[in-house]
Amino acid sequence: MIQEGTPVREILRRWAEHIGRRVMINGWVRTRRDSKAGISFVEVNDGSCLKNLQVIVDHGRDRFQEILQSLTTGASVSITGVVRRSPAKGQPVEVEAESISIVGSCDPASYPLQKKRHSFEFLREIAHLRPRTNTIGAVMRVRNSVSYAVHRFFQERGFYYIHTPIITTSDCEGAGEVFRVTAQQDPEFFGRPTYLTVSGQLQAEVYALALGKVYTFGPTFRAENSQTRRHLSEFWMIEPEMAFADLENDLALAQDFLHHVVSSVMSECDEELQFFSKFFDEKLLERLQTVAERPFEVVTYTEAISLLKKSGENFTYPAEWGCDLQAEHERYLTERVFNGPVAVIHFPRDIKPFYMKVNDDGRTVAAMDVLVAGVGEIIGGSEREYRYELLLEQMKLKGMNPEAYEWYLDLRKYGSVPHAGFGLGLERLIQFLTGVPNIRETIPFPRVPGYAFA
Amino acid sequence: MIQEGTPVREILRRWAEHIGRRVMINGWVRTRRDSKAGISFVEVNDGSCLKNLQVIVDHGRDRFQEILQSLTTGASVSITGVVRRSPAKGQPVEVEAESISIVGSCDPASYPLQKKRHSFEFLREIAHLRPRTNTIGAVMRVRNSVSYAVHRFFQERGFYYIHTPIITTSDCEGAGEVFRVTAQQDPEFFGRPTYLTVSGQLQAEVYALALGKVYTFGPTFRAENSQTRRHLSEFWMIEPEMAFADLENDLALAQDFLHHVVSSVMSECDEELQFFSKFFDEKLLERLQTVAERPFEVVTYTEAISLLKKSGENFTYPAEWGCDLQAEHERYLTERVFNGPVAVIHFPRDIKPFYMKVNDDGRTVAAMDVLVAGVGEIIGGSEREYRYELLLEQMKLKGMNPEAYEWYLDLRKYGSVPHAGFGLGLERLIQFLTGVPNIRETIPFPRVPGYAFA
Repeated sequence: MIQEGTPVREILRRWAEHIGRRVMINGWVRTRRDSKAGISFVEVNDGSCLKNLQVIVDHGRDRFQEILQSLTTGASVSITGVVRRSPAKGQPVEVEAESISIVGSCDPASYPLQKKRHSFEFLREIAHLRPRTNTIGAVMRVRNSVSYAVHRFFQERGFYYIHTPIITTSDCEGAGEVFRVTAQQDPEFFGRPTYLTVSGQLQAEVYALALGKVYTFGPTFRAENSQTRRHLSEFWMIEPEMAFADLENDLALAQDFLHHVVSSVMSECDEELQFFSKFFDEKLLERLQTVAERPFEVVTYTEAISLLKKSGENFTYPAEWGCDLQAEHERYLTERVFNGPVAVIHFPRDIKPFYMKVNDDGRTVAAMDVLVAGVGEIIGGSEREYRYELLLEQMKLKGMNPEAYEWYLDLRKYGSVPHAGFGLGLERLIQFLTGVPNIRETIPFPRVPGYAFA
Repeated sequence: MIQEGTPVREILRRWAEHIGRRVMINGWVRTRRDSKAGISFVEVNDGSCLKNLQVIVDHGRDRFQEILQSLTTGASVSITGVVRRSPAKGQPVEVEAESISIVGSCDPASYPLQKKRHSFEFLREIAHLRPRTNTIGAVMRVRNSVSYAVHRFFQERGFYYIHTPIITTSDCEGAGEVFRVTAQQDPEFFGRPTYLTVSGQLQAEVYALALGKVYTFGPTFRAENSQTRRHLSEFWMIEPEMAFADLENDLALAQDFLHHVVSSVMSECDEELQFFSKFFDEKLLERLQTVAERPFEVVTYTEAISLLKKSGENFTYPAEWGCDLQAEHERYLTERVFNGPVAVIHFPRDIKPFYMKVNDDGRTVAAMDVLVAGVGEIIGGSEREYRYELLLEQMKLKGMNPEAYEWYLDLRKYGSVPHAGFGLGLERLIQFLTGVPNIRETIPFPRVPGYAFA
């Protein structure tokens, strides 16, 4: 059995109680600096946190002189030593090495990750090594923290976690930009055409109408051929669904959810957020604070269009009642008009999917889009059409075949109830939380048109 | 805004403090029984727990007589009333209805879910209604409880949750039984052939060698054409991976993991487990208790084969050194020889995948299979081959193309460390926890050859 090292996170967070203690650390060399005084400073990172632990290597000790040239960037080491107060700035403690074992060497001539800064484009070409960089490591710790906060939020509120299917026979948004799934040996494996899911909502509704409150958290897919900094072909979605709920309940849930998640990450990933704030967006923390605390401003779509029209702004797409809100409109509303999170509600029926509840005016639906600074839309949700006749009418209006959705219509036939839910893309949320410019840096192995590593 | 009801779970669990209180419950009628004394007994379920809440409807009150015929199985209702001590057996309290609103009716003539017992085969044909049954509802609450316990276990131990890709370019097990993924509009969407993942392990290794300890929890796929009670084409896997760990660390982790998960479910889903014990397997609780507490017995594969050989059992597949363990062997070892969980270690190199660490004997690998009663293998893991030359040799021996796995080999080139992990199929675990005969009842929407609902 290999002895577990003390995580660097532990040593740095509770440094005072570690002073004078002998510790073993297992990790990777980030850098080494040799002084003329016969001492080397080795920065070791073990992945448990952003910061490195500085190890002091006295050349006169043990056989350190011999192994010195193996202590190169990327080498894995197991080091035992005593924790001392550090005279250096920016770190409370350091470790005075007593024994060092090189576990796996790393040839400096061929190792692609050298000390210098690398472009994100280059790092994507070495997606198997990029988690060893500060930025990707920090993003993935934030991703972990968000993911767990999502589960805690719903579990504490009595929602059941449901795994909706990945391979599906229906296309929720009706967009047609779906991936086809086939077995290599047998094209008719499932006896009917199958696709990768674009949303777990329809199936989550099945479970909400049995268990009351449920949520999904799983991968979804779009075969859209767009190369932007906001799109992925494979991404993770969170989709709560509640029985006995309307749009107002939905709004309240979305607000509590964002408050909880943003404030959890702020308290758990302080170090990472400081890092992002320094390198990507100096206003990051301020922006997060606003979303962590502020109640949503709520405006109807009709009001929003009127605000945009009288803004005097020169939008690329002029705002007109009946058109979808563009990113430029969304950002104007949240960043300029309200300076905080905004929920736009009651969109025109024609630009929204078939499953949304038609309002009494007959021309809008009980939908909501939640907008935040920097990203635009972060949450999209609605009350669902729970009246059989109206749902059927909507499906026909949108040119769908009701027979293919008989099971979905059945939910309105047998003990139907008002119900509502929303969807949130995990990667958009991480982009919002970290400020990384391209969404490809928010997921371990991004999938986009023309690119799939590993 | 719709007023949230008090969950039935709350009322039944803390019944004493609810007596005399006025509550609102939102749920679905399970059954109604009319007495000659002018009173009806309506069983209401809201999905929050297995048990129903009994509602007393006095025909003389309000306009109850009129709505009585709408209170049929499956109808959704919102009921306000006062909690009273119940004179009936098997329930501490009941609710005396003061007002009843039928939210959505349910036509008894066409509703497929009547009070009688339905076969699981029939229920799969109405997969959108089956979560409203006791069994499927209970299984899904267990599934929720396991899933959250998995996250708690790893998070409390400093493991980071990693989302490995679903669409992948590599085939971890080399089995070839994979689903192909193509975009409808553009067959060369990613510029290379892509598949649905069979395991996130290889990519999890990338992250373990950067962040130290990680785990995945996501869907995996097999295009295997087998119709058994133990196979699904789409299932969820949990795969932890630790840097600086060998097979012994891996075994210790697996044992702690099973103890934690099984005992969490036993304390959170007591009602459900009682139900399963009553209807599927009277020895269920005893079996779970054993796995929740008992340390693993550890035997080498070689010892296991010798135990099987001298067992005197008439196996369908005779046990010989070099053959894979069959379900009959696994169950004999865990149920008959050790009467508790067993870890079999050090399997022949030839029957295990390329990535497992070759032992010093040159003919076995540092693998482990954990066996439990009723199910057989529940966890499979190994120490990974972390030595570049030996991994390359293994790949060549198995007829693989090393160029396609250059990124994986790189992990052994740059700061390699001993590392280990395991995989556990969520649905097998749920089968073990609930005793349901067919794995198709353990997942909301099962996918198997010839069948994909919704």
